[in-house]
Amino acid sequence: MSDVIDIHNAGPADLERAAAAAARDFDAYRSTTPAQRAAFLHRIASEIDALGDALVQQVTAETGIPVARATGELARTTGQLRLFASVVRAGEWTQARLDTPDPQRTPLPKPDLRQRSVPLGPVAVFAASNFPLAFSVAGGDTASALAAGAPVIVKAHPAHPRTSRLVGDAVRRAVAAENLPEGTFSVLLSSGPEIGVSLVQDPRIGAVGFTGSRRAGLALVATAAARPVPIPVFAEMSSVNPVFVLPGALAERAALIGRDLVASMLTGVGQLCTSPGLVFVADTADADTFLAAAADAVSTGPTGPMLTTGIAQAFGEHSARAAAVDGVQILAHGESSTQPCGGRPQLLMTTADRFLAEPVLAEEVFGPSSLIVRTPVDRFADVVAGLEGQLTATVHAAADDHPQARELVRRLELVAGRLVFNGWPTGVEVGHATVHGGPHPATSAASTTSVGSRAIERFLRPVAYQNLPEELFPEEIQKANVWSVPQRVDGKLLT
Amino acid sequence: MSDVIDIHNAGPADLERAAAAAARDFDAYRSTTPAQRAAFLHRIASEIDALGDALVQQVTAETGIPVARATGELARTTGQLRLFASVVRAGEWTQARLDTPDPQRTPLPKPDLRQRSVPLGPVAVFAASNFPLAFSVAGGDTASALAAGAPVIVKAHPAHPRTSRLVGDAVRRAVAAENLPEGTFSVLLSSGPEIGVSLVQDPRIGAVGFTGSRRAGLALVATAAARPVPIPVFAEMSSVNPVFVLPGALAERAALIGRDLVASMLTGVGQLCTSPGLVFVADTADADTFLAAAADAVSTGPTGPMLTTGIAQAFGEHSARAAAVDGVQILAHGESSTQPCGGRPQLLMTTADRFLAEPVLAEEVFGPSSLIVRTPVDRFADVVAGLEGQLTATVHAAADDHPQARELVRRLELVAGRLVFNGWPTGVEVGHATVHGGPHPATSAASTTSVGSRAIERFLRPVAYQNLPEELFPEEIQKANVWSVPQRVDGKLLT
Repeated sequence: MSDVIDIHNAGPADLERAAAAAARDFDAYRSTTPAQRAAFLHRIASEIDALGDALVQQVTAETGIPVARATGELARTTGQLRLFASVVRAGEWTQARLDTPDPQRTPLPKPDLRQRSVPLGPVAVFAASNFPLAFSVAGGDTASALAAGAPVIVKAHPAHPRTSRLVGDAVRRAVAAENLPEGTFSVLLSSGPEIGVSLVQDPRIGAVGFTGSRRAGLALVATAAARPVPIPVFAEMSSVNPVFVLPGALAERAALIGRDLVASMLTGVGQLCTSPGLVFVADTADADTFLAAAADAVSTGPTGPMLTTGIAQAFGEHSARAAAVDGVQILAHGESSTQPCGGRPQLLMTTADRFLAEPVLAEEVFGPSSLIVRTPVDRFADVVAGLEGQLTATVHAAADDHPQARELVRRLELVAGRLVFNGWPTGVEVGHATVHGGPHPATSAASTTSVGSRAIERFLRPVAYQNLPEELFPEEIQKANVWSVPQRVDGKLLT
Repeated sequence: MSDVIDIHNAGPADLERAAAAAARDFDAYRSTTPAQRAAFLHRIASEIDALGDALVQQVTAETGIPVARATGELARTTGQLRLFASVVRAGEWTQARLDTPDPQRTPLPKPDLRQRSVPLGPVAVFAASNFPLAFSVAGGDTASALAAGAPVIVKAHPAHPRTSRLVGDAVRRAVAAENLPEGTFSVLLSSGPEIGVSLVQDPRIGAVGFTGSRRAGLALVATAAARPVPIPVFAEMSSVNPVFVLPGALAERAALIGRDLVASMLTGVGQLCTSPGLVFVADTADADTFLAAAADAVSTGPTGPMLTTGIAQAFGEHSARAAAVDGVQILAHGESSTQPCGGRPQLLMTTADRFLAEPVLAEEVFGPSSLIVRTPVDRFADVVAGLEGQLTATVHAAADDHPQARELVRRLELVAGRLVFNGWPTGVEVGHATVHGGPHPATSAASTTSVGSRAIERFLRPVAYQNLPEELFPEEIQKANVWSVPQRVDGKLLT
């Protein structure tokens, strides 16, 4: 940790400076045109691209993430920034609505009522440990908040302080290059949690984006709710991402499913929010083939260092705790790692009865561990009913499984934010249809997504304007529509 | 209260019956087509229309609301139901999105990702005292939740139990007539608050709509947050609806503004959520004209019975407390009422310094009372900075006030949900651009509206579906689009 403190251990004075600047410059930043804001987001992407190999090397040096994944994550990060630039320009986020007045209406005239969205205020972003670029200083929360017209203060994650500083400096260069006010963006680099709590308590903060553990997320939710003026916390927290394998799928490709499950589970050394931690497999003869293939893949599969020694230690404890539960057997182990951050992959197995009797088995084990529950298919409904909220749920089905799959999808859509069919939950596509969210405890705000173009909506609220003189209406809802945003007139979108 | 208990004092067994039915029938109700749901909402409107004069008479008998307003409120109630029928049919609420897959993309194929919305679960609706029809059993919360595909359990308001029963029976007739499952809709008639707390705590409830006092609203928010699985509470709670009168407007029509202020304040005997309780008037010579006209209008204006003896008593206490604050003078009183529910209108006056020094003066006094703050215009920014969140804010300005008005609108849009220009905040238009919401404590969910077509969004959350076989995608996001909902393909709306 001394290394982190060397970088910079932000204290109350740093927070005060950042919050004062954000509050002072909120009005200037939210007044930028869509074109200006899009240019800013593009400029951030260019500055990050310009760091190139130096940034990739810093990520690999600091996190143990291999070059290929760091390179991919850099591309995803700049891709997200450019996506939000296009979202800002497209203008649907303005929610521009104009209801036609009718001065002659009786008994009361119908007013000239128009609506648009305004940002909630400066946004506090809590960076994640597991995506040092895509969910960190200039990650999805930052990109979507800046797109919404909100200044951002990032609480960087102490697992990658040098990466955070490199990216933070790149964003600040973009702020300067685009002649935006300084308070548009700040980073707080700190090794301890205190500064984060103070940030959420600061009356100048209007909303919070968070990706991390359930414990930390719920603590921030409680902190925000206890403020004199509560603010929303969009926390992405915890998910075991259940997978359901139906009999027909097993009959068709049991070994392939077993192998691919392990490949998904080992991606990012199991440290992805969407890692498949729980697999319900139909209790048919083909299940043996599935289990053998999965066990073989774990025993011979790659292992790598985990993100931090703390995460590796927690993984060791939680995976051992799950393995020690009565009625749980260890199906396979990966190689022991000699690295200080090593996490030994493990595959556990139990029955539906044991699973339902032991709530600890439904908890997330952050790292390369999955629990396989061999279950008669007619118990799938029971186990779904017992599940907590999830980011994802996955169904493997062959054509003859479709009636059961349809029923399962109907149940799982009430539990999860994204349903995957005949694939794996790891690998989140960043698009317009993306939902990276889900009911509690997957997130603290089930009606939102933290990835994809709709993430911008989290930081906005609607305002109605009644009977203003035309020139006093905001640009989005003037009839001249100089920004060419989509306007809904009497509820119908003009195109 | 014994009268209320005679009607029905719902207990735990009633709640259990209602919640079990709602949970049991949630899946069937959310599976209705847009056409079926629209027909249901139309049928409820027709059933209420059929009650006609009998319902108006019940409202007037039970609440002291005069016939004209009850008649208008009935029309608004059925109008809202029909608006939501058209919203359901139009289908934007489905948020149907289809991102085009690309199997050839490298390094990873792009999946077939689609999005639609699902309801959060059965919704608990807390009816308001002050709109026995439009914000009660079949009011805006109920209409928008039913439109979203959520079963509804209404906690009726004890101020109008017979009205609640009449309307509740009408809705249940509509449920039966449209062959919908019984659990689609229930009413709990109760005089005490306990049943409401139990309702919010019930694990089968997915969201809460509430209109009422700040105290009760915040209590329900805390109850919902303390659940093992927290749920959103959409509470519309408290607002003083500040009005700002600029010098040019005063010069042009000081007497008219004074008279119209009082007319707005006396509407509904001051018991509207949007009643103007705080008026900042520019300290020019014309302000005397404004004050004289307002005082005259209060002294000679109509008074009427308040909704309940409890509300009248609270109004008496709160208005007396405000009048007793050091530096506050009573500008005018209305007639004393001899009725048990009478509330005596009052107009108070103070200075900006006193207003800023006494937080109690910024609190809502529910009833016919307004505080006029005579203020140099250059202090308007100070008083806005000290305001809590509001449902509305109003600006009166003549042409030569526009520079100041523009600045004021920019500040007020961060404080309020609706800005009114040269008019009055009472009278909420129910349309597509409507926002009846605002920052805490006006509501508990600043990003939503409880009136107007966007109210449906509160009860929905997005779900993504990845790589499903075409026939397993929900109807909204199948390419065949049998319901003809607007679909966004790669972020662009097809029309």
